[in-house]
Amino acid sequence: MPINAAGRDVPETLAGKSLRTYQGAFGTVPNGHRAGGPRKTLRPGVVKLTPSLGEALKNAGLANGMTLSFHHAFRNGDLLVGQVVDTCAQMGIGELRLVPTALFPCHEQLLGHIQAGVVNRIEGSLNGPLGAYVSRGGGMASPPILRSHGGRWRAIASGEVHIDIACVAASCADPYGNATGIQGPNACGPIGFSAIDARCADHVVVVTDHLLPYPALPPEIEQGFVDQVVVVDRVGDPAGIVTGTLRIPRSPTQLRIAQLAVDAVKGAGLVKDGMSFQAGAGGVSLAATDFLAQEMARSAVRGAFAIGGTTRFLVEMLRDGLIGAILDGQAFDGEAVASLRENPQHYPITPGFYADYDALGCATYKLDFAFLGGTEVDLDFNVNVNTHSDGQLLHGIGGHQDVAAGAHVTVITIPTLRGRIPTIRDRVTTVTTPGEVVDLIVTEQGVAVNPRRQDLADDLRSAGLPVRSIEELKAGAERMVGKAKHPVFGDEIVAAIQWRDGTVIDVVRKTEGWS
Amino acid sequence: MPINAAGRDVPETLAGKSLRTYQGAFGTVPNGHRAGGPRKTLRPGVVKLTPSLGEALKNAGLANGMTLSFHHAFRNGDLLVGQVVDTCAQMGIGELRLVPTALFPCHEQLLGHIQAGVVNRIEGSLNGPLGAYVSRGGGMASPPILRSHGGRWRAIASGEVHIDIACVAASCADPYGNATGIQGPNACGPIGFSAIDARCADHVVVVTDHLLPYPALPPEIEQGFVDQVVVVDRVGDPAGIVTGTLRIPRSPTQLRIAQLAVDAVKGAGLVKDGMSFQAGAGGVSLAATDFLAQEMARSAVRGAFAIGGTTRFLVEMLRDGLIGAILDGQAFDGEAVASLRENPQHYPITPGFYADYDALGCATYKLDFAFLGGTEVDLDFNVNVNTHSDGQLLHGIGGHQDVAAGAHVTVITIPTLRGRIPTIRDRVTTVTTPGEVVDLIVTEQGVAVNPRRQDLADDLRSAGLPVRSIEELKAGAERMVGKAKHPVFGDEIVAAIQWRDGTVIDVVRKTEGWS
Repeated sequence: MPINAAGRDVPETLAGKSLRTYQGAFGTVPNGHRAGGPRKTLRPGVVKLTPSLGEALKNAGLANGMTLSFHHAFRNGDLLVGQVVDTCAQMGIGELRLVPTALFPCHEQLLGHIQAGVVNRIEGSLNGPLGAYVSRGGGMASPPILRSHGGRWRAIASGEVHIDIACVAASCADPYGNATGIQGPNACGPIGFSAIDARCADHVVVVTDHLLPYPALPPEIEQGFVDQVVVVDRVGDPAGIVTGTLRIPRSPTQLRIAQLAVDAVKGAGLVKDGMSFQAGAGGVSLAATDFLAQEMARSAVRGAFAIGGTTRFLVEMLRDGLIGAILDGQAFDGEAVASLRENPQHYPITPGFYADYDALGCATYKLDFAFLGGTEVDLDFNVNVNTHSDGQLLHGIGGHQDVAAGAHVTVITIPTLRGRIPTIRDRVTTVTTPGEVVDLIVTEQGVAVNPRRQDLADDLRSAGLPVRSIEELKAGAERMVGKAKHPVFGDEIVAAIQWRDGTVIDVVRKTEGWS
Repeated sequence: MPINAAGRDVPETLAGKSLRTYQGAFGTVPNGHRAGGPRKTLRPGVVKLTPSLGEALKNAGLANGMTLSFHHAFRNGDLLVGQVVDTCAQMGIGELRLVPTALFPCHEQLLGHIQAGVVNRIEGSLNGPLGAYVSRGGGMASPPILRSHGGRWRAIASGEVHIDIACVAASCADPYGNATGIQGPNACGPIGFSAIDARCADHVVVVTDHLLPYPALPPEIEQGFVDQVVVVDRVGDPAGIVTGTLRIPRSPTQLRIAQLAVDAVKGAGLVKDGMSFQAGAGGVSLAATDFLAQEMARSAVRGAFAIGGTTRFLVEMLRDGLIGAILDGQAFDGEAVASLRENPQHYPITPGFYADYDALGCATYKLDFAFLGGTEVDLDFNVNVNTHSDGQLLHGIGGHQDVAAGAHVTVITIPTLRGRIPTIRDRVTTVTTPGEVVDLIVTEQGVAVNPRRQDLADDLRSAGLPVRSIEELKAGAERMVGKAKHPVFGDEIVAAIQWRDGTVIDVVRKTEGWS
């Protein structure tokens, strides 16, 4: 097999389809034109409300082998994917391809549908049990393709992925199809994930549990792209948006990493007026956001904007004037959703605006720095967010690739050990994000600076920070717990990890235990 | 020549291109897919600011024969079209096609460029001197095509009109190309007209006189579609947005028509909770809006929404709770622009959302009634808004066709005489909007009901309103001033009037005086 620019063995074809292999973070020059959806028209007075999901799918021409798409704004509280696939099963439909943005443990019920042949392909992020199932091999007609938020947008916009029926969960919609996730009693935050599905799909069904009179404002999904509207009892439970707790961790290791991450960006001169950043919703990221806010308040620094994945920590920074705007692709708590409704400087964005490679720039390219996590890193600064060190595919990409590629300084925060498993490897189990776009790895034992960024190493040393080589950090962890074990993989490729430009940066193989 | 469904002689070809001829208001079934713009990418750090229009046009690959597009949110205060075409002339470029939404008297300077061959084609609305010039014949390489707001959107979205370089005047933009007309010291109101240009053009230049730090929110034009940003001294003068006065007229005839129009929609049972309407910015429309507001307040009616062309009269209705929302495609005064900034229920919409035929419905289809004007009407209820009774092409279509096609009850308000010229003709000089979609013609002498709408005639008679046949109204005017004179036309076709679906509903011929 050819070795790609990330040093990984990636085949030239997969399940009979040719793959473009990774050429470097900005190695692809797109050509041709963006896909346009079908031209349709409608007379005044036509009613789009359809009494049930089943009738809507029938009207949409549901057939074996079709591709259905979904968004994941409700995350682990989504109730739509299950209802739709159950309905397809009842209608005797099979061999469906699902193109969700992401699936979660709440979608475990799909396993039965996969085993029954109702669903035989998935392209999207697989968090938890579905990923574990895929890792065992043999489960799907073709291996799942995982894409970043920007990568999925690009794939649909370019025509690489054609959607037959887009199913859009909306916490609020009007009978003409204007839909949003920001309003309604079960508001889930932005649903702009589906905006590209709506533009390009052959047929679009908005599903809501809160119908408002026309016009429902602001419409994240616009009437002109929507064929049908279905009202169901419940499209999702916002309580499921938060997985785990959105609290500052108490672990001294995590707090140490968060503080060091903030010290590092400060040492690099990035904490200054007009600054911009993104931080995730994991414990270390929350703590880092909190420490950053304290640092900005102390130094009277006013940032230009932050990008969310948004939690109350960012909302407070906006309210306190520490940042001028939040560009919000995804809400992680109720405070974020309320702020989106109330503050025009808290602005919902689509993954296209956020992260599209096939565009004249995107929001992540304007980031000064970002705090991102990972399950593993390696000596080449590659980051794995998809698989665990046992080889199991358990997580999606989210915006990891998009942010790392865009931010001026990409900071990976990671403890050197998880339990007794070292996280710094010779080679990561799976490359999600290549070392080429990773600048700092911050651990509780010190900061490793990518050799490409000698400028940062100098800054951090001048600031008195504990700069270590990545090899030193790795050796330190191994002194405590010994060398890392390695999983045994079979030959079968069970998933492909796309880089955000549509090339394949790595593949995931069937797990067969430990060496 | 074939007679089309509006009873007009329309050729099968024009300037060597085949025309689709009008088949009825909903006679076209679109097929194929919408056009997508070119796929492009950009690395982080690339700067889009270009020091001058000339350099921007050069970077854009400006060449002879290209198509340049513009919006008209500044109306008669636009300063961009002139600057761009002057620059093209200085660069020695010729044979340009301009695709503005509309040109105004302020663009009279283009006449010199047309005579010099810098510009030889225009597709867009021609208000005033440019229309008069065209009417004299022989001035252009091919006859201008006039489209409604929805029609222009459709033409670009479908690929019928391909734009090489879109020039977007923005009262506010950031250096990455996010642009709006709602912010900035010279805010002009929504610039969503250009959103489809930006999506489909080969190259997009945002031109602003007010640069804000990234991110400028909310972006009506998004960064991902913008190649370059140019800062100039002035893109437009908002004082030019208002042509004439935005005041309630004092003319008893106009006030009588306005009151009768409101009485008519009330008589038809349309003034009720949840109602929706659109009214223009002409004197009669303003008076009708004002009378309607009084009627709604008196009857404690709360409407769902109104569509603007927005003036302070609509803004006051929103503020007073008489309507729940304004969907705003175009601002006609400073109060409207301020309200767009301040009130989330005053929502800027694109012409696509407003009026696109090639979409699964649009906002005009949700209108209960609309008050529209015209220069002439005829016995078949056809309406002319483009030419005067002397045959001169002096006005654009705006949303006239789109609103008439969509509204449940379309009310044309028109005095039976303008000066001593009768406005009700046997046949209108030009068909802009076919009688098929016109329901009531309200004059100071009474209301004519389209025979297709016997239901309305009954309602209006029951309400005690002066229902007259259109023939009676015509005869009444002719008793006062005699029969209407008719202009003499040459053979040359100087402009084509498209129906909103892309078919040609009528053509305008060279004027050669009076019979």
